[in-house]
Amino acid sequence: MKTQIAINEVGKELFVKMVLSAWETQNTRVSKLLNSLSDEQLSMETAPGRNRGIYLIGHLTAVSDGLFTLLGWGERLYPQLDAPFIKNPDKSVPDLPSAREIREYWNTVNVKIAALMNKMQPDDWFAKHTSISEEDFAREPHRNKLNIVINRTNHMSNHLGQLIYLGKKEE
Amino acid sequence: MKTQIAINEVGKELFVKMVLSAWETQNTRVSKLLNSLSDEQLSMETAPGRNRGIYLIGHLTAVSDGLFTLLGWGERLYPQLDAPFIKNPDKSVPDLPSAREIREYWNTVNVKIAALMNKMQPDDWFAKHTSISEEDFAREPHRNKLNIVINRTNHMSNHLGQLIYLGKKEE
Repeated sequence: MKTQIAINEVGKELFVKMVLSAWETQNTRVSKLLNSLSDEQLSMETAPGRNRGIYLIGHLTAVSDGLFTLLGWGERLYPQLDAPFIKNPDKSVPDLPSAREIREYWNTVNVKIAALMNKMQPDDWFAKHTSISEEDFAREPHRNKLNIVINRTNHMSNHLGQLIYLGKKEE
Repeated sequence: MKTQIAINEVGKELFVKMVLSAWETQNTRVSKLLNSLSDEQLSMETAPGRNRGIYLIGHLTAVSDGLFTLLGWGERLYPQLDAPFIKNPDKSVPDLPSAREIREYWNTVNVKIAALMNKMQPDDWFAKHTSISEEDFAREPHRNKLNIVINRTNHMSNHLGQLIYLGKKEE
């Protein structure tokens, strides 16, 4: 019995590590890119007529900030970012936070998320998140907290591909 | 004892489902976008001075084709795509396959991958892939076949974010 429990726990730990490593890899790539870009570069469109860098970073920050409530970690840090960066498209809101502020929000959210992710136990990740009902979760147990991280990592990769266009042509 | 094995197996199946669903979601998004784009749109740069649509689809096809050997599924279908779409940058190889050919390669590779993914048993996914040594795998068991799929899904999302720029401005 003990051996089986051990295998089971190792299995879960291994899954969690795979998913969190992928999150960390993409997250670090965004942060490195952000640090390499000037405020002026951030204020540019990623391609003609497309979202500006500052909008995409604000958008990623707001979506990551949403993890606090979705994963049951507590209150969000910057709920005020939803209106300008999720609910409305780029260039439709007159007063966006400055590049300096957005950089700070991005860093703060990510440092807190990394600490909270580290504190979670393997089993916690396979529990339901807050926007699925008990009934739906019983039918679809793959819609757990870890699954949210898988999806959010792909979302981050998607916009990272666009943000790269603000940098040097070689990238 | 049986109950523990059952939980363990359900855990693995669930996890595999989470990862494969994410792959399928991103893969379907690329295919839908590709079907919505004309050959002329595909021949355009995704942003000024950046990779063209046809290059990115060829690149994603070649990388996915690499899964056949990496995951031990057998011979690759289109190894000839590596030179123009992985080893060399866009606009450096004079004779690329046509848009019609690239679309066909993309579809063929993905249909075969979906069938092969479906045939895999949960345990198969946690085995080592072909480009890691037994020694390294013993130390780092998270570098298994399923982890390759997690990473490749993010890679696909990354380029999907860029390919979207070939389409309508609303996207």
